[in-house]
Amino acid sequence: MIVDIIGRLSEEVKGKSFTFVLVVGTTDVSLIPGITVAGASPELTMFTPAADAEFLMTGRCRSIDVVPITPDGIPTPALISRASLSLVKTNKLVVNAGSRVKPRIPHLDLGGEPGGDIRKWGVREEVGETILENAKSLGENLQDEEFLVVGESIPAGTTTAAATLEALGYRGVDVVSSSSPANPKDLKRRVVSEALKNGPVDSRKLIFKVTDPVILGIVGLVSGYPGKVLLAGGTQMTAVAALLKEWYPDRLKDITIGTTRWIVKDPTARIVDFVKEIGVRLSFADVDFSLSRHEGLRVYERGFVKEGVGAGGSMIMALSRGVSPSDIVNSVDDLYSKLTQI
Amino acid sequence: MIVDIIGRLSEEVKGKSFTFVLVVGTTDVSLIPGITVAGASPELTMFTPAADAEFLMTGRCRSIDVVPITPDGIPTPALISRASLSLVKTNKLVVNAGSRVKPRIPHLDLGGEPGGDIRKWGVREEVGETILENAKSLGENLQDEEFLVVGESIPAGTTTAAATLEALGYRGVDVVSSSSPANPKDLKRRVVSEALKNGPVDSRKLIFKVTDPVILGIVGLVSGYPGKVLLAGGTQMTAVAALLKEWYPDRLKDITIGTTRWIVKDPTARIVDFVKEIGVRLSFADVDFSLSRHEGLRVYERGFVKEGVGAGGSMIMALSRGVSPSDIVNSVDDLYSKLTQI
Repeated sequence: MIVDIIGRLSEEVKGKSFTFVLVVGTTDVSLIPGITVAGASPELTMFTPAADAEFLMTGRCRSIDVVPITPDGIPTPALISRASLSLVKTNKLVVNAGSRVKPRIPHLDLGGEPGGDIRKWGVREEVGETILENAKSLGENLQDEEFLVVGESIPAGTTTAAATLEALGYRGVDVVSSSSPANPKDLKRRVVSEALKNGPVDSRKLIFKVTDPVILGIVGLVSGYPGKVLLAGGTQMTAVAALLKEWYPDRLKDITIGTTRWIVKDPTARIVDFVKEIGVRLSFADVDFSLSRHEGLRVYERGFVKEGVGAGGSMIMALSRGVSPSDIVNSVDDLYSKLTQI
Repeated sequence: MIVDIIGRLSEEVKGKSFTFVLVVGTTDVSLIPGITVAGASPELTMFTPAADAEFLMTGRCRSIDVVPITPDGIPTPALISRASLSLVKTNKLVVNAGSRVKPRIPHLDLGGEPGGDIRKWGVREEVGETILENAKSLGENLQDEEFLVVGESIPAGTTTAAATLEALGYRGVDVVSSSSPANPKDLKRRVVSEALKNGPVDSRKLIFKVTDPVILGIVGLVSGYPGKVLLAGGTQMTAVAALLKEWYPDRLKDITIGTTRWIVKDPTARIVDFVKEIGVRLSFADVDFSLSRHEGLRVYERGFVKEGVGAGGSMIMALSRGVSPSDIVNSVDDLYSKLTQI
């Protein structure tokens, strides 16, 4: 039920203790109309990571009244993460890498700041270095776990991930997925191309110009953490893996990307080819939502939302402890019912 | 080498996974001349918790240039904690319950604020409730560990602990120890007595008036955490235990106070009698510093400093993993040498 595309995660994670870390942030890229559906409107995307974090940790949102939804009313994948993790015992921590709206719950702050519109500038160089350094220190102090599971919430994160990949010489826009079934590739391509145009020659400076605080936070965390890591996310995690390969090549051997079936099967993206290219393992949770009681969850099977807030990795960790796919769907259904009173 | 005064910790902690949480804060009580030696001057006590946290996590201080010292130049017990925990694998987290100077490392913030001078007011009621609520939520999200070890750093913390105990009807000033071999009991008694005089009739409000943010943070953390807890501290932890008995009596059965030999043997304090009175377990690390290579550490045997930053609990956790007392002293000695270039 954990399907290994490359490598063998299933046996590695079985029964292992783990800490789930959610890294949140925002950039002004998500304000570009049409680029993301991770919020009911471009302005509301600024609240999505804080609300995701609050919901994951406490079961309700504080920064906004209801859970984050797409403009079509489909709820955040934080539902899947919370419901899946509620079936196993785990530590959960929230890390703020740089958000316009900070989560109103205890969280670890990396001393970053929100990213800009990468067509002008993404992460200021000194801020990027601070995020990397603080995240590394945090990773060094999480030594007791057998596995570190790292999720993300950052609207328009696939666009900054694509730009990061392109800055490293990969065809990033081709690789990345989208939270919409209609992946706005032309728009992403234009934004990424404008971001890279006239960028700094220095390769590290160029990364900072086009990336986002969450990617840097996760890279830093993994650089300091001494053990095995599940990067719980979709195509955004390919940018993390590619940066690790560039800056911390020794860490690559301990990395698995763990995601959902919807990301792996996305016809608009190319995650499977890409992980082969850079040499990192990939697994996904084989859970089918078509039997959900709720239309708002069944639409995941039609390519809506797909991933985020470590949804795929959370399902993987539940499956690895012997929870069945139908128990996961039931748990998500129940949480959805509780929220919507349906 | 872990000596159980009451209860049996040794077997319970053996080989158990644990997270070490350091809760930091300040109050204006530490500005009262003569009340504490947790800083080279009353003003510098405001930097001590931040510097302790920074040193524990990274091995150097950021908020000040050197590690916190007493007016006599004796270094912070954070040395003992870092050296002991470096001998075992553990997660370490810093929680800020309310500090004038915030640690310059990633830490969890409980949304509190520094405590006042309890002769006027300690913790504002709404702030106290926020600290309790956020800490509870944090505790609920640390489910994977078999043991939670909680240390503290708050200058003049024994005075606010004494006031908290007195507000609960105990003879608190008699119970508490001091970071100085000359425990300034008369001064503490005057401050506590003035703090309690004309206090609110409502018992919860009275606690907020005379307590500190760290005590509330630890009480909240334990209220949410579902497993066994080692309160890694001296007589301040008796106030935590007494508040737990008052507000969350069900949690008392999972609590052990874990401290140093210097606290248990302190002729000016009465921790052993008190834990019997309220019904909580007590253990200490039987480690002798008289064989240390450094005078600044040998003086611990003469009652200087005694405890803090979870020093006793850190030694207990190292001992529980089979580290010998002399290995602990060597490790602390080496860290001291590195710091002072002696």
